[in-house]
Amino acid sequence: MHPRFAPVELAFAGPATPIPADVEPLRVRFVHADGDTITVPGFWDGDDRYLVRFAPEQEGAWSWESESHAPELDARTGGFDVGPAAPGEHGPVRVAGTYHFAHADGTPFRPVGATAYNWLHQEEPLFTETVDAVAGAGMNKLRFMVFPQAGGYVEHFPELLPFERDADGGWDVTRPVPAFFRRLDEAVRTLGAAGIQAEVLIYNAYDYGRFGLDGLTEEQDAAYLRYLVARLSAFPNVWWSLCNEFDQLDRPDERWDAAGLRLAEIDPHDHPRSIHNLVRLFDHNRPWVTHASLQLGQATEDFGRASLFRDAYRKPVVLDEIKYEGDVPDRWGHLSAEQLVHQFWITTVSGCYASHGESFVIPSGSLHIVEGGPFTGESPARLGFLRGILDEVDGVGLDPVDNWWDDAFVAGVQGSVYVQYLGREAPGEWVFRLPIGWRGVQLEAGDRFEVDVIDTWHMTVAPVGRVFEIDEVAKNDAWARAAAPVALPAGEAIALRIRRVA
Amino acid sequence: MHPRFAPVELAFAGPATPIPADVEPLRVRFVHADGDTITVPGFWDGDDRYLVRFAPEQEGAWSWESESHAPELDARTGGFDVGPAAPGEHGPVRVAGTYHFAHADGTPFRPVGATAYNWLHQEEPLFTETVDAVAGAGMNKLRFMVFPQAGGYVEHFPELLPFERDADGGWDVTRPVPAFFRRLDEAVRTLGAAGIQAEVLIYNAYDYGRFGLDGLTEEQDAAYLRYLVARLSAFPNVWWSLCNEFDQLDRPDERWDAAGLRLAEIDPHDHPRSIHNLVRLFDHNRPWVTHASLQLGQATEDFGRASLFRDAYRKPVVLDEIKYEGDVPDRWGHLSAEQLVHQFWITTVSGCYASHGESFVIPSGSLHIVEGGPFTGESPARLGFLRGILDEVDGVGLDPVDNWWDDAFVAGVQGSVYVQYLGREAPGEWVFRLPIGWRGVQLEAGDRFEVDVIDTWHMTVAPVGRVFEIDEVAKNDAWARAAAPVALPAGEAIALRIRRVA
Repeated sequence: MHPRFAPVELAFAGPATPIPADVEPLRVRFVHADGDTITVPGFWDGDDRYLVRFAPEQEGAWSWESESHAPELDARTGGFDVGPAAPGEHGPVRVAGTYHFAHADGTPFRPVGATAYNWLHQEEPLFTETVDAVAGAGMNKLRFMVFPQAGGYVEHFPELLPFERDADGGWDVTRPVPAFFRRLDEAVRTLGAAGIQAEVLIYNAYDYGRFGLDGLTEEQDAAYLRYLVARLSAFPNVWWSLCNEFDQLDRPDERWDAAGLRLAEIDPHDHPRSIHNLVRLFDHNRPWVTHASLQLGQATEDFGRASLFRDAYRKPVVLDEIKYEGDVPDRWGHLSAEQLVHQFWITTVSGCYASHGESFVIPSGSLHIVEGGPFTGESPARLGFLRGILDEVDGVGLDPVDNWWDDAFVAGVQGSVYVQYLGREAPGEWVFRLPIGWRGVQLEAGDRFEVDVIDTWHMTVAPVGRVFEIDEVAKNDAWARAAAPVALPAGEAIALRIRRVA
Repeated sequence: MHPRFAPVELAFAGPATPIPADVEPLRVRFVHADGDTITVPGFWDGDDRYLVRFAPEQEGAWSWESESHAPELDARTGGFDVGPAAPGEHGPVRVAGTYHFAHADGTPFRPVGATAYNWLHQEEPLFTETVDAVAGAGMNKLRFMVFPQAGGYVEHFPELLPFERDADGGWDVTRPVPAFFRRLDEAVRTLGAAGIQAEVLIYNAYDYGRFGLDGLTEEQDAAYLRYLVARLSAFPNVWWSLCNEFDQLDRPDERWDAAGLRLAEIDPHDHPRSIHNLVRLFDHNRPWVTHASLQLGQATEDFGRASLFRDAYRKPVVLDEIKYEGDVPDRWGHLSAEQLVHQFWITTVSGCYASHGESFVIPSGSLHIVEGGPFTGESPARLGFLRGILDEVDGVGLDPVDNWWDDAFVAGVQGSVYVQYLGREAPGEWVFRLPIGWRGVQLEAGDRFEVDVIDTWHMTVAPVGRVFEIDEVAKNDAWARAAAPVALPAGEAIALRIRRVA
């Protein structure tokens, strides 16, 4: 009995002469007993070996049949039964509740991501140290590039590269290097086992001509994409990002858009798809984009900003890169840990998500955002703590409650739980007040709430220990006038969680 | 010789029995000597009178021919010659430079709009007082509804209504009331003569069942739209807005979108098209939307907010309604004049535009945003002053210079003119510094600038009177380190204009 969500891998012996990898060597149609059908492309894995990977989401009986121009790979059949998922495996993550994410089994997923662009190309111990650091901090997503990185702060250049060379010394995408891609498979599996979503950065804006992998033609890029998707799509923890800082490359937007549409068409498991920018945002309204992954240096520095992207895009907003905790002179890389954590909480009450990165110059001369390794900084633990608070939300996610105007910028699941962030230097007390959203859940006199005081830096949650009862309701606000204010540790970075109780 | 941009009106005697106005009675094809062709729908104007209005944008010889099912209106022909525009007539306004506006002759247009929803339905002297007040203040756009308003603060209900009644007491859109629409024509002309763009709010969220004009079917709404466009489109100063606060009505977005697509298809003069919200923004990415007209109470209260909508929509952003100067208890209606002016300047350096409204309770019991009249408040003069500053910009408009991250939130035409707003309580001095945008115009040592200190409240422009020379350039900033700081009137609401000089 095969567990739901886990990849089924079918292996075939094909022709002795490998089928060039810009051709789909075979495809397999998987048919569920209820009639649902999914067609999955296969790929060459060296020698005469061809694989097809499929992660069934439905329990029950599946049958399959292959189709190929190669007789060895055509008209093969088989079947398997799928049972409950393994404990802890919730399936692939997709968009839920318009602005949030959830696993296929409905379990909410709140991305609190890390960044190590060149992680895949590191040797041990860096490779495993990175996974341990991210998982140990409680972060649950890692952005990393398939192609190796060049440019500033890069100190290590891999020998294992994705394709064979052609006669002119260029890249032959029809001959992928199986060892390279098996290593990538294993990297994705390793992240999955550690509870980390693998956000695969497909194309590379940081080649700077060193490897020439940014110089592939559009057709070569497409062949590589098909190969990559055929290999990785069945891993439940995959997210696709076309590129980090796409606007650094001199390519028309139409080429990126065509790649995104292609990806949406060929990925049988419908993983999240995005494309990230340096300064000029991609048009995240395009239909293949599942969530707006974007960078805008200012967007999380204050309240009332990032949430505007939700209003415009009507998709989840993930600010992948909000500047980094570190000590480099570049303006993107010297946030204090306190400032980065502060920005994450602003992001949270804006109903958005963000990603972390660390940029202290380490002995190798590199940075964590390049090569990974253990964390140097102090923000990761606080972000894991934030992730824990988010995971206690009973609902798909936090949305700004009174989006039109609310000086307090409260987010929540209306009527159930509210989160308010008081900034890096909270006042000495807080008077109980909740916003009421337009056409939202109406609060009424008699509704009862408990309040937790969250120290976002010291990572404590202190229940106030008394019940607050609403006694005054206006059009956009509700108060508990009879209740004494909540005493706060003035000057600390405080958030409040207000939960409805019976 | 007919002047360019002015409406040509062709009048025809048609059948004695009026053609119902849900049918296009005739259309005229206008052909320029160079071959360009524009087809314009006609409309019934009472009795046996049918009109076609067309505003030619090309000089030269035009010929025309009519087409109709009615023999009296079919195969009529004629011609006219078009010469230069009349002095001061720059033609219809359209989007320019992605985020801005310009007249058809290239003259930039910077909307600084006013709001009087029920203006059209007022008697004299209110009607003319409104026009005089808006023009006198230097504001250049007025939002007003075609259909009469009901609900709060409305004290006057017109007798002249747009359609005849049908046998059941409902509205018969096949029989528009010519007197109503001639009055509307005249209103649009009057605004044009006063230098004011007429932003026509086509459908009505403030009927509340009083007139039942919000209860037309989609087909009736479409017939009305076609009639309205045929009547008004040739007036150069028209802007179309489908609705103010569309989300107050219980209609699927698809119905609004179909109306917008219809409007884009049928308007021969391609005027600006938008749709405005209360809380939930319409999807301004839709292809028929020319600019994002939106309301979000918080969006102009601080820097770093409204500009995000530019990044998302890649269209001009006009915050029509940023709350009003007034004294009503409703949270949308009691800004001080200083606060409203402040928000306009934040909007300006965000590369966006805004609209004004006034909500003091006046002796009639109504508000200026409802019925117009003379202004009570103090903001209009300051907004006219701002409009004058904008009109001195040599270029299509101001764009945030370093959009990624700039604590100073400077907007400008890079290399030419920069505007920085220092807030409602400026510091005592300013040290010369300009941002450099990513892949923008590179500033260099030796570049020379003059600075004007603008008191946004007292409406003064004081040249600093010495030249600043850049002597230090970094990646994102340029300074004139050798120059003494600019002395400012501390505590005043100050903006700076920095202009390149030879």
